[in-house]
Amino acid sequence: MIYFNNDYSEGCIPEIMEKLSLTNMEQTPGYGVDSYCKDAADKIRKLCKKDDLAVHFLVGGTQTNLTIIAASLRPYQGVIAATTGHISVHETGAIEATGHKVIELPCENGKITAQQIDNCARSQSDSMDAEHTVMPKMVYISSPTELGTLYTLEELRAIRDVCDRRGLYLFLDGARMGYGLAAEDNDVFLPDYARLCDVFYIGGTKVGALFGEAVVISNPALDQDFRYMIKQRGGMLAKGRLLGLQFGVLLEDDRYFTIAKRANQLAEIIRNTISGLGYHYLVENKTNQIFPIFPDKLLEELRKEFCFTEMERIDAEHRAVRFCTSWATTEENVNALCRKIKELSC
Amino acid sequence: MIYFNNDYSEGCIPEIMEKLSLTNMEQTPGYGVDSYCKDAADKIRKLCKKDDLAVHFLVGGTQTNLTIIAASLRPYQGVIAATTGHISVHETGAIEATGHKVIELPCENGKITAQQIDNCARSQSDSMDAEHTVMPKMVYISSPTELGTLYTLEELRAIRDVCDRRGLYLFLDGARMGYGLAAEDNDVFLPDYARLCDVFYIGGTKVGALFGEAVVISNPALDQDFRYMIKQRGGMLAKGRLLGLQFGVLLEDDRYFTIAKRANQLAEIIRNTISGLGYHYLVENKTNQIFPIFPDKLLEELRKEFCFTEMERIDAEHRAVRFCTSWATTEENVNALCRKIKELSC
Amino acid sequence: MIYFNNDYSEGCIPEIMEKLSLTNMEQTPGYGVDSYCKDAADKIRKLCKKDDLAVHFLVGGTQTNLTIIAASLRPYQGVIAATTGHISVHETGAIEATGHKVIELPCENGKITAQQIDNCARSQSDSMDAEHTVMPKMVYISSPTELGTLYTLEELRAIRDVCDRRGLYLFLDGARMGYGLAAEDNDVFLPDYARLCDVFYIGGTKVGALFGEAVVISNPALDQDFRYMIKQRGGMLAKGRLLGLQFGVLLEDDRYFTIAKRANQLAEIIRNTISGLGYHYLVENKTNQIFPIFPDKLLEELRKEFCFTEMERIDAEHRAVRFCTSWATTEENVNALCRKIKELSC
Amino acid sequence: MIYFNNDYSEGCIPEIMEKLSLTNMEQTPGYGVDSYCKDAADKIRKLCKKDDLAVHFLVGGTQTNLTIIAASLRPYQGVIAATTGHISVHETGAIEATGHKVIELPCENGKITAQQIDNCARSQSDSMDAEHTVMPKMVYISSPTELGTLYTLEELRAIRDVCDRRGLYLFLDGARMGYGLAAEDNDVFLPDYARLCDVFYIGGTKVGALFGEAVVISNPALDQDFRYMIKQRGGMLAKGRLLGLQFGVLLEDDRYFTIAKRANQLAEIIRNTISGLGYHYLVENKTNQIFPIFPDKLLEELRKEFCFTEMERIDAEHRAVRFCTSWATTEENVNALCRKIKELSC
Repeated sequence: MIYFNNDYSEGCIPEIMEKLSLTNMEQTPGYGVDSYCKDAADKIRKLCKKDDLAVHFLVGGTQTNLTIIAASLRPYQGVIAATTGHISVHETGAIEATGHKVIELPCENGKITAQQIDNCARSQSDSMDAEHTVMPKMVYISSPTELGTLYTLEELRAIRDVCDRRGLYLFLDGARMGYGLAAEDNDVFLPDYARLCDVFYIGGTKVGALFGEAVVISNPALDQDFRYMIKQRGGMLAKGRLLGLQFGVLLEDDRYFTIAKRANQLAEIIRNTISGLGYHYLVENKTNQIFPIFPDKLLEELRKEFCFTEMERIDAEHRAVRFCTSWATTEENVNALCRKIKELSC
Repeated sequence: MIYFNNDYSEGCIPEIMEKLSLTNMEQTPGYGVDSYCKDAADKIRKLCKKDDLAVHFLVGGTQTNLTIIAASLRPYQGVIAATTGHISVHETGAIEATGHKVIELPCENGKITAQQIDNCARSQSDSMDAEHTVMPKMVYISSPTELGTLYTLEELRAIRDVCDRRGLYLFLDGARMGYGLAAEDNDVFLPDYARLCDVFYIGGTKVGALFGEAVVISNPALDQDFRYMIKQRGGMLAKGRLLGLQFGVLLEDDRYFTIAKRANQLAEIIRNTISGLGYHYLVENKTNQIFPIFPDKLLEELRKEFCFTEMERIDAEHRAVRFCTSWATTEENVNALCRKIKELSC
Repeated sequence: MIYFNNDYSEGCIPEIMEKLSLTNMEQTPGYGVDSYCKDAADKIRKLCKKDDLAVHFLVGGTQTNLTIIAASLRPYQGVIAATTGHISVHETGAIEATGHKVIELPCENGKITAQQIDNCARSQSDSMDAEHTVMPKMVYISSPTELGTLYTLEELRAIRDVCDRRGLYLFLDGARMGYGLAAEDNDVFLPDYARLCDVFYIGGTKVGALFGEAVVISNPALDQDFRYMIKQRGGMLAKGRLLGLQFGVLLEDDRYFTIAKRANQLAEIIRNTISGLGYHYLVENKTNQIFPIFPDKLLEELRKEFCFTEMERIDAEHRAVRFCTSWATTEENVNALCRKIKELSC
Repeated sequence: MIYFNNDYSEGCIPEIMEKLSLTNMEQTPGYGVDSYCKDAADKIRKLCKKDDLAVHFLVGGTQTNLTIIAASLRPYQGVIAATTGHISVHETGAIEATGHKVIELPCENGKITAQQIDNCARSQSDSMDAEHTVMPKMVYISSPTELGTLYTLEELRAIRDVCDRRGLYLFLDGARMGYGLAAEDNDVFLPDYARLCDVFYIGGTKVGALFGEAVVISNPALDQDFRYMIKQRGGMLAKGRLLGLQFGVLLEDDRYFTIAKRANQLAEIIRNTISGLGYHYLVENKTNQIFPIFPDKLLEELRKEFCFTEMERIDAEHRAVRFCTSWATTEENVNALCRKIKELSC
């Protein structure tokens, strides 16, 4: 069985594994105050071109999302998100479990607009019984989104403007940030994220690390006592250096961008095959996720050799599915997949 | 600087690192349903001599404690623990953040007694206004305790009896279980834990793994939908196989016990030196933690070369401190510590 | 200023005030275990024709909703509700503050259908990554709804069937139940609610009491330790008899139904006037709430003498509004309102 | 049966009942923004001699405590309280259910000292692993305490000093404030409370009202969006005027103080009888609660005619109990109790 179902089926890039081995018996302080974490944080500040960023390392995405949101909101405040947002659908109510409502906005292609956010915030604050409703205080967006699309710089700026006008925090989930940064149609880079977001994170789990997400906080108000929050929510890794070390390696020598670019290129090969055969997509995008709409018959055969993700049913005979490439995907597997799709399309 | 301040200053045993390297590019399903996790769970069931145990792998201790407790209790129920219990003092209120009171009982040497638990449960249930008070429903104990002591089989049985009589769940935190199992005065083994506890965990982070705790659930009621709870609380590792793989290696060839035994023996060497010099202890024990009471002057000098944990002040000129050995401690460092303590005691 | 903005602008029916005065200096046990509460509970069991119902009295609606839902769900479970449901929009995230997601379904006229509920529950339970999503476990409906509409017996039975099939609890918010029971097109009565719902409540605050909601629990699983939950969530009134006394008076001599019927009849007079003038409605219904769509100009004038609730904007020149009648509404005020609307419509 | 078991066995003072009747059919806005609430708030500001106090009215004590504490603390912060504090023992974990730890300090006579608070806060903030422990941020005291004792002005000032020095909020639970203000040994008055506390409340439920607690907030930071918190926690009464009206009547013509003084005097009569017979007390105090230690035999007889509260067992033959007088206690009942105690003591 060949896995295209997600971007976390393998371990980590070899350079990380090597360094883990090499440094294994070193003694360091626990809980993320070691020199590996400090170095990785410095690298991030440099790449973001902003000296005063706070940087923390957590193990996984749900943990990161719930910790940031719980740290940022007062009890009666909520977070605006797309209905397709990870926190809206794929975290078993992790945000609600911290006491906060996810205010879901309908979305096209995984993205919400500045206008939608503005309407949502205004209609609450203008309401005669505002105190009977949840106060939106944070905007959660992901880029790449859960549907592989990207916010443009213009879109992001417009959202930032609304956030400023309405007193909202902007939080960007970058679990797949590498694939976004390396996308051919991308125009938003780390210094933009650092400037436009109150808080965001650079994903490691899905982009070459064994695990790990690097939280970058631009707004000092959100950083207050943040380590208390990490500890309380169970996110403080005893051997915190494992996180710092991995990000140190990933962010060295353009590695994070290089491996993501390769994954995007392999995705593009698959896309070209699929498009060439005349299939359509649930959503079009240029990152490492591909969402073709295939006939059930083709899928039935494909499932025998390949593992992929089932998305929504389109009509009685078609379903959308998802293939992911990653830093670990081999050309061999990509070729096998393309060959098989072609074969089944004859 | 030589670190004796905890048992998680280094990485992992070499056998784990090797296997991580070796299997790095394998593709497996995510979230802990891979074959490594299945194998490790089987090993645990075999070691516990109980076929019907549920086994789950989490990353760290606080996460494990909060997930188990939140999964077990209804909103108005609380968990009984020693005032020195990890959940009482060292988790930034993680349990309260899930909505539950930690009902703290005073303790000697880190342990609470069956009698104390019985009194606590009875006084609540017999109270005329029982519904105005938190209902105790779970007992949390750790063995080895935070003070390195162990529950005996007799003590554990007595606690189990009270739990049966009062309708309480028994939860044992085994973050340092290896050091307990390998202690020379220990008489409680894995099958006992599996038989006497509703739920317990076998600690990896402090006993040879990079990270990881293996949760073992004997009581099916506590296992219901447990994976939902893991996901919701941010504890479901994407590359879950990393946990299964590590426990698989640890529990092979008696490795878990062997490395812990060595750490205990090194601790005994330090203890013999300290006792030989006439010092006393905050608490006496036979596991990998040592709690001597030293004069401030000695500590001042010792701090220059060794890192250890400050415990409570005893009097104007003395303070208790903690040294930990671990699977990673070298004889060289033990000798250096002993030499220095002797030198400073002349 | 004449108030038609809600059904809780005045105090209580005179019979309640009289009895409060008469019994003021009696001594009774606190917290709802007095004879007034027992008598009112017995009356409810008799009216529901079901001897084994548990009955509890709480002060207000939000408190009642959050207490019932928090008592019923495990942490990873959510409650299905209409997007217009009171818990979805008008309780400042009270449900989320107890840790649970409100799973919102789009609705027509304030009502959700058995089919929608079935789809929602099935799509979660059938999902390959079910444990990554909130498990629906309770259905929350209100009748009359927040838009004054009523569930028919057939609709309610269909919902009950789905709940049985999918293992869901059915919870009905009856904050305005009196107006529903007395509606001319109603075919659901107290014994039906008691038979079809796991839990529901009979509203007092909006139907003649100073305050108070009577919670009726048919499913014993939901009643377990319910008084602990009431106390913990701050809903246990010290002088609990005030609640029992009020429901005792309301449920005597058909009073609850009689006063509600009169309110519905006054609403019908207003409706006839509005319809006679050719206006349309946001939603059509037969209970004590009226939702006409009026031109802005008319509303501007009407606001000078009457207080009512603004609903959504319909187009550039029209807005929907809400008028409520209640047990306390006077014919004089109804006539004044009708006269004014006619006058402004010429 | 004659009730001395608490101070909420009857309804309300006749003047409140009269005004409720008189104003019953008035129409007012809901949710506490009516003129009755405004007037009562003004009276409180005047009595406190402080123009800028925020005043809110809630229904009961537990609701008030949990709303204030949840509104004040960030998730990782806790509230310091006496082990005998109402929030520590008698609210079914209501505070923990909002996510916050109650940090319990041992106490004598229901009171904690400035020194204890200082030690607690300092030991946390000075700790090397501060972020692994709950940060104390609020001090909860009650006066009169749950044991009927009072903080002196000097004690309160000392606590305020510590709070200033350590950055803690001071919250005073005044559920029985009237009995404290009217105590013969009291030297703390409303302007002192308003000046020294960040937030406190004036109890109505136990001092003449049907229900109600008046929250007074001196520190504007704690008032931010407080009404959102009231609504979310289920404490916003639809007919909010009922609360304002009651406090308006209570705080008129020195009524609150007068009725409390009379209750204290009746308590003193009982105390004189008990002391005259040579009995001792669990704790000595001058407010409306009396805590004598009686032989079991006497209690057995007394229980046949009087209802009172059982406190802790003192020895094999003695138990402490509690009698409460209140604004509603009759001289006749006091005489009957004294007569019976005398009779049983011969």
